[in-house]
Amino acid sequence: MYDFALNIPTRIVFSSGNREELYRSVLSYGRKIMLVYGGRSIKNIGLYDEITRELAAANAELYELSGVVSNPRHTKVDDGARLCRDRDIEVILAVGGGSVIDCAKAVSVTAGSAADCWDIITKKVVPVSAIPVITVVTITGTGTEMNNSCVITNEELKIKRGYSNNLMYPKISFLDPTLTFSVPAFQTACGCADILSHILDTAYFMPGDRMELLRSIMEAMGRTVIRYGPIAVAEPSNYEARANLMWASALALNGILKNGIRQPAVCHIIEHELSAYYDITHGLGMAVILPRWMRYVLDGDTAGIFAGFGRAVFGLSDSDDITCAEKTVGALERFLYSDLSLPSRLSSLGVPDTDFDQMGENVCWGGKIGGLKPLVPGDIVNILRLCY
Amino acid sequence: MYDFALNIPTRIVFSSGNREELYRSVLSYGRKIMLVYGGRSIKNIGLYDEITRELAAANAELYELSGVVSNPRHTKVDDGARLCRDRDIEVILAVGGGSVIDCAKAVSVTAGSAADCWDIITKKVVPVSAIPVITVVTITGTGTEMNNSCVITNEELKIKRGYSNNLMYPKISFLDPTLTFSVPAFQTACGCADILSHILDTAYFMPGDRMELLRSIMEAMGRTVIRYGPIAVAEPSNYEARANLMWASALALNGILKNGIRQPAVCHIIEHELSAYYDITHGLGMAVILPRWMRYVLDGDTAGIFAGFGRAVFGLSDSDDITCAEKTVGALERFLYSDLSLPSRLSSLGVPDTDFDQMGENVCWGGKIGGLKPLVPGDIVNILRLCY
Repeated sequence: MYDFALNIPTRIVFSSGNREELYRSVLSYGRKIMLVYGGRSIKNIGLYDEITRELAAANAELYELSGVVSNPRHTKVDDGARLCRDRDIEVILAVGGGSVIDCAKAVSVTAGSAADCWDIITKKVVPVSAIPVITVVTITGTGTEMNNSCVITNEELKIKRGYSNNLMYPKISFLDPTLTFSVPAFQTACGCADILSHILDTAYFMPGDRMELLRSIMEAMGRTVIRYGPIAVAEPSNYEARANLMWASALALNGILKNGIRQPAVCHIIEHELSAYYDITHGLGMAVILPRWMRYVLDGDTAGIFAGFGRAVFGLSDSDDITCAEKTVGALERFLYSDLSLPSRLSSLGVPDTDFDQMGENVCWGGKIGGLKPLVPGDIVNILRLCY
Repeated sequence: MYDFALNIPTRIVFSSGNREELYRSVLSYGRKIMLVYGGRSIKNIGLYDEITRELAAANAELYELSGVVSNPRHTKVDDGARLCRDRDIEVILAVGGGSVIDCAKAVSVTAGSAADCWDIITKKVVPVSAIPVITVVTITGTGTEMNNSCVITNEELKIKRGYSNNLMYPKISFLDPTLTFSVPAFQTACGCADILSHILDTAYFMPGDRMELLRSIMEAMGRTVIRYGPIAVAEPSNYEARANLMWASALALNGILKNGIRQPAVCHIIEHELSAYYDITHGLGMAVILPRWMRYVLDGDTAGIFAGFGRAVFGLSDSDDITCAEKTVGALERFLYSDLSLPSRLSSLGVPDTDFDQMGENVCWGGKIGGLKPLVPGDIVNILRLCY
């Protein structure tokens, strides 16, 4: 049985350079606008100037929440929510990658409540309304532009936590591949690892029955990332590559692949620990963890699912599942660490190995974590050591 | 460039036998409900009794629009709209296949206007509101449960015409594969041909650039239909087969594959002529036309796209595009006429060849029709002769 529900209210506008609908739709929600962004990158590509000019020309009151960093902090969300309340913000325009959009989505529900961000993320407070969010994606990978989730970090508590609420679906997301031409090779590679990890860790490698249609679609998406990732890294202005990655990113985590499976995405949860402690880029963390987790859980029960991916995506032909699964892990490692040139080891990232025990406890909440293979804290430590 | 916009507001509930949310959501829109259905089939499977009992128990006022036939008529839509206005219907519950749901969607916008159905379909009147529609799919193929379109036939004028309006997106569609267990082999086969025709005629075989990601997803969907169609025909209660076909059907025509291409779906338009004149089941008409259209337009310009599908879906390995394209048509014919046992010729369906000239004119509106290969009325006649 494959019971699931799916409802994606977000409107996607996929276009190259045409932002007429962007300004019209932002203004349709009001003239008190908060622009959320990170740092220099949207200024470097001229997008910041264009947006502020266009909205000023329409007599909008534009406020800014800038300096959103990767692994966005709850304190920044609280800053944004305060600004929204003080200025009666009517619409939030998030321009950036996953961190900027996640921050904006968290602001949207925090602003509508008389609460702090962390109380909402930890579900102490249930938001009942949200300020509309419109996004312009400038870095591809997280898929947040087409879903109802965000991931927020509490630096003080060293906790990075996902949060989902249907109020957080962006109203409209603008996907323009040309805006990603200037994304550096490293971030492009991290984005590819992130997309793959969404296909694999949150869907394909989940336990339980899988509808063959969706398995086949996931394999199609996997092949797309494998094919176009290295092209986008080598030729940053390759439209074909950027477009395919951009749409794959949105489709990979919008719920269409989930098939109703409700199991923890184990590698994501391990990665959240790493990011919370050491502020690692999420896609990079996933690239380091995913193949090592695969090696660790590879046995007679799991080999078939890994081998299936290897045959469909890496063109492997070994009929023995264990052999084929091992080659699949190898092919994935070559893709991530060689084709995409991502670092492969935590030690090379300056991460100490002193907190692994605590991380293992955190991942398992003191007990056991489900997924393709149930794991206890000691298993998590072993996997982290494989990553080290 | 792949500019497109996508927004699918319909909520999908995919489940086996659990209809608790169905009744709750229908009643959330009101207690004056119109049930739209065809004939005996929903009574035979006990669904009619269950629905009427459950809604009666909730003190709903239930009105019925029954006897919706395949190629639903505008007169039936007008009957339904009149009933809606007379009884202040608050929500329409459509239980059936594509014809029933198309009829209900047309009723929903006609009822909200002071106009006749045909004035809306022909765009003389623009509807501004619609009664909410909730669907329960009992025959798979058309994909109407997840899109904004309907196809309505004017028997008197011998015109079958498609119509799209965002007001017509169903609010919720319930997809329960077990409800399709009793669909006869012939209708199951027609549904499979319909799904394939949506993948091919409205997307894959369209002219213009195609995002590789979507091409690859379409091939995944094509393989799914080829794999599970014959299983569903041979084993009507095979849940796996019914589930895959049911979800493929919805995904094939919900806009996600379209990639912004705005060209006429030529085979669909030819088929609409056949159905308007001779009341043929749409999926069957598509099965007869599609391979013959492929043969007719197969040349150095089109062979590559046909061959690509053949290699990815039928496992063909010929490197020469023309050879491979010819084999692709052959493989498609074997699938439709042998594996699915669908009739292959118009002559065997009792269709005379006396109206082909007029049909050719109608398809081309007197001029030329676009698509992968622009065609004039004489071409349409030639294609129809190949089908005869």
